[in-house]
Amino acid sequence: MMYGKPIRILGTGKYVPQIVPSEVLESKYGLPEGWSETHSGVRSRYHVGKESSAEMGAKALEMAMEMAGVSLPDLDLIISGSASFDYPLPHQSSAIKREMKDGLNCQVPTMDVGSSCLSFLSAFEVAASLLNGQSYRKIAIVSSEIASKGINPDNWETLTLFGDGAAACILGFEAEGDSRFYMAVQRTYSEGFFDSIIKGGGNKHFFKDYPYDPALHSFGMHGKNLLRLALKTLPEFLQDFFAGMPISVAQIDCIIPHQASKSGIGLLQQIVPELSDKVKQNLLTHGNCIAASIPILLHDLIHSGEIKRGYHCFFIGTAAGVSVGGMLIKY
Amino acid sequence: MMYGKPIRILGTGKYVPQIVPSEVLESKYGLPEGWSETHSGVRSRYHVGKESSAEMGAKALEMAMEMAGVSLPDLDLIISGSASFDYPLPHQSSAIKREMKDGLNCQVPTMDVGSSCLSFLSAFEVAASLLNGQSYRKIAIVSSEIASKGINPDNWETLTLFGDGAAACILGFEAEGDSRFYMAVQRTYSEGFFDSIIKGGGNKHFFKDYPYDPALHSFGMHGKNLLRLALKTLPEFLQDFFAGMPISVAQIDCIIPHQASKSGIGLLQQIVPELSDKVKQNLLTHGNCIAASIPILLHDLIHSGEIKRGYHCFFIGTAAGVSVGGMLIKY
Repeated sequence: MMYGKPIRILGTGKYVPQIVPSEVLESKYGLPEGWSETHSGVRSRYHVGKESSAEMGAKALEMAMEMAGVSLPDLDLIISGSASFDYPLPHQSSAIKREMKDGLNCQVPTMDVGSSCLSFLSAFEVAASLLNGQSYRKIAIVSSEIASKGINPDNWETLTLFGDGAAACILGFEAEGDSRFYMAVQRTYSEGFFDSIIKGGGNKHFFKDYPYDPALHSFGMHGKNLLRLALKTLPEFLQDFFAGMPISVAQIDCIIPHQASKSGIGLLQQIVPELSDKVKQNLLTHGNCIAASIPILLHDLIHSGEIKRGYHCFFIGTAAGVSVGGMLIKY
Repeated sequence: MMYGKPIRILGTGKYVPQIVPSEVLESKYGLPEGWSETHSGVRSRYHVGKESSAEMGAKALEMAMEMAGVSLPDLDLIISGSASFDYPLPHQSSAIKREMKDGLNCQVPTMDVGSSCLSFLSAFEVAASLLNGQSYRKIAIVSSEIASKGINPDNWETLTLFGDGAAACILGFEAEGDSRFYMAVQRTYSEGFFDSIIKGGGNKHFFKDYPYDPALHSFGMHGKNLLRLALKTLPEFLQDFFAGMPISVAQIDCIIPHQASKSGIGLLQQIVPELSDKVKQNLLTHGNCIAASIPILLHDLIHSGEIKRGYHCFFIGTAAGVSVGGMLIKY
C-alpha cells in the first residue's frame, strides 16, 4: 500500500522588499547596538516601502510558476495562506491574482486559507487534499505578509523581531512521482487566545469607535505565556504526530519550523535534541515573517540545495489562536 | 460507479441578533417610508448590539451540534467561512472556538477559509475534500457576519441592504449514506475587483496613516458594474457547471443563491426562467448577510421542511473579488 498522497512541489518563489539592518531600528528606537540580535535573534529583516502584500505575493508566485514551468491558465486554484491583508474585503488571494501579469485575462479561482502564522501549512493541507489529478491538477499557494506596519514602538518584544516578505509554492498531483504529502495536524489551545493578538480593527474594536492607538492596533504578544504553552504541548504533539506514521523522527532529513522567536526555535531544539542540527533557521536574516516565514525558508533551502528530492521534510510551528501544527512531506 | 462523495449535512444551526424593521432605518436616515423594501428588497434585518461575530458563530454552531448529536471532541476541525472578523489576528475560527462552552477544554483544530461572500461554499468544498472517514470524520463550518458596522450613511446602495447573523453546519463522511457532495466551482474575474470592496483597514490603507472615514472604512459597492459582470458570466458558468454532470438542471429541487441584492436574485431568475420558482430567498427578512446568507437560508429551509433528504440542492452566487461560484449536493 502506498502511504501518503503523490503531491509534488513543482516550484517555489520568493520576494522580499528593502533590507533593514538592525542598526537602523536600534538607532531609531534608542536601543543599544546589538540589542536586536541578542534579544530577538535578528540581524536584519526586510520592510516594505510602497509594496502591497498582493504585489509581493504576485511576484513570488510568478517566480514559482517560472520554476515549475506553468502559466496562469495551468493553475486550478490560487490559495493565499497569509495572516495579514491589503483590504478587509475582498479576500487576499483575489488581490494577489489581480496583480499578476495575466490576472485580468484569466479566471482561475481564488481562496484564502488561514490559521494565523500556520496559514501556509493549512493552505498546503487544503491544496494537497483538493488535488486529484482531475478537477485539481495544479494549485498555487502564496503567503505574503507585511508585519512592519503593525509594530508598537512601546512593545520591546516585537520591535525588532518582525519582517515582511512573500513566498509561493506550486503543488501538483503526480501519480507516478516519488514525492509525497503524508499528513498535517493542528491543535488549537484556546487558553492562549489573548497571548498573541491584534485587538483593534475588526468587529470587536471597530475603527469608527476606536481611533488608532498603537497598543490596540499593533501586534501584542506575551512571549513567556506562549513559550510555556509550547513547552507544555509540543512534546505530546510530536509523539502523537509520529505514532503510527511509517516515517520515524530519525528518518527526517530537514525540520522547517515557523520562525516565531529565538526562544521558540531554541525550545524546539531542546525538545528534539537528537535532531537539533536538522532544525533550519532564517530568523537571523529575515525575522519573523508571520505565515511567510516557513515558505520563504523552504524556498531558500530548495534553491541552495539543502533540500533535495526524496528528503523527508517536517514542518512545525505555533500560531496565534493558539495553535500548534505539524506537517510531513517527501520533497 | 458512484458519482459524488458521500458527505452528509448532519445538522445546522442559526443565530440572529436584534431585529431592525426598515422603518427604523428609514426614519434614521430620512428616507421615505417603504424605501428599503422597494429599493433593497429588505423589510427587516438583524443588527448586533454587543454581540461579537465569534459569540454569534459559537451559538449557531452549538445549535448545529445539538441537531447532529455531536459534542466538541467529536469534531475533527472547525472552519470559519466568513468575510468579516472580530480581530485582525488570530484567525476567526479560533475566536469562535474560544466562545464555545467547552472551547477551553478541547483542542479541536481551527482554520479559516475565505472567498468573501462565497466563503461558506469554499469552506464546504474544503470540508468535503478533507472528510475521509478516518482522520476527518466530522467537520463544522461556521459563517458569522457583522455587516452593520461597515455601512456608509452616504452610500444609498448599502444603507438598508445588509444584515448581521450566523449559521453553522456539521458535515460528516457517511460511506453508507445516500447524501452526496457532487462539485463546487468558482471563477475569479479580476476586472471587478474594485466594484465591491472595503478599502481601509488593511495594509494598503493602514489605520495609522488613514483615520476613520466612512468612505474608506465602509463597504463600497458598484451594483451596476457587478450586475453587468454577472449577466456576462453567469450563463456560461452555469452551462459549464452542468456539462458532464449526471444531474441535469431540470433535476434540481432547490436553488439557494447568495442574497446579494434584489436585482442579483432577479437576474438569476431571468437566466434560468424554468427554475425560477425553485430559487429560494430570505433577503426580505434578513437582508444580505455576507457569507452567512447562504447557510442561514439553508438552515431555515431544512427546518421548515422545504429541503428534504434526497433533494438536489444547487448553491450559486457572486462574491467580492469578483468571483462567481456554484455547488451541487444531495441533502
